[in-house]
Amino acid sequence: MDRIPILRMGQFLLVTIQVDLYDRLALDLEADLVKAVSKTGARGILIDISAVSIVDSFMGRIIGNIGVMSKLLDAETVVVGMQPAVAITLVELGLPLKGVYTALNVERGMDLLKSKIQFEDETIDQEDDNSDDLPE
Amino acid sequence: MDRIPILRMGQFLLVTIQVDLYDRLALDLEADLVKAVSKTGARGILIDISAVSIVDSFMGRIIGNIGVMSKLLDAETVVVGMQPAVAITLVELGLPLKGVYTALNVERGMDLLKSKIQFEDETIDQEDDNSDDLPE
Repeated sequence: MDRIPILRMGQFLLVTIQVDLYDRLALDLEADLVKAVSKTGARGILIDISAVSIVDSFMGRIIGNIGVMSKLLDAETVVVGMQPAVAITLVELGLPLKGVYTALNVERGMDLLKSKIQFEDETIDQEDDNSDDLPE
Repeated sequence: MDRIPILRMGQFLLVTIQVDLYDRLALDLEADLVKAVSKTGARGILIDISAVSIVDSFMGRIIGNIGVMSKLLDAETVVVGMQPAVAITLVELGLPLKGVYTALNVERGMDLLKSKIQFEDETIDQEDDNSDDLPE
């Protein structure tokens, strides 16, 4: 396989990781995702890792990078479907996946993304309202 | 990889095929999908094959089987993201994927599924209404 497919679903992008993320594939995914966020204006990324049973520090770092990069483009990242063994390994490796949210499954992850986006939009609205009260 | 993950999204199940469907994996997917439809009461299956560049008669048959089996459990199957070369190969192999619908991408596939389900539900409602008029 050359590339991991990125599926667009409304405001979100969905990626299912089913194979070992060796170096080239992981870096391609990172670049493809950031490009896709920029191109589609997506507000959130869902990364399903339910088929991943072994995780190493490289993969942990790549997922963290995706979270930070997409945040710079105003998209949140949610990792879903993590197997218990993977959670244990990540903590033992000292990789708590900073910058990304996690959820048990895709449905909950999507709900989380929707609430995050709604909260952000409301905050921006409120800031706009407040700015009207300020003297010019 | 042992199994292809099946993601539940509301009334639908989503499967992304990223690897070659060799015999065991394909039969497992077939069984897993039918079980998942039965367990979740899903009304539709979306199979994304955008990462599939080569198709053979076995894979064509498996996809056809999934369509027919899930139809028996009242779920429609939509294959999305087919590459042009795969469409050419399928026709040349004489496998027009009977029993499944196709759509260009996940979003359109989901719209198609929603319209199919709505249409079915409306038809059932109308039949119910008509049956009220019949003498008992």
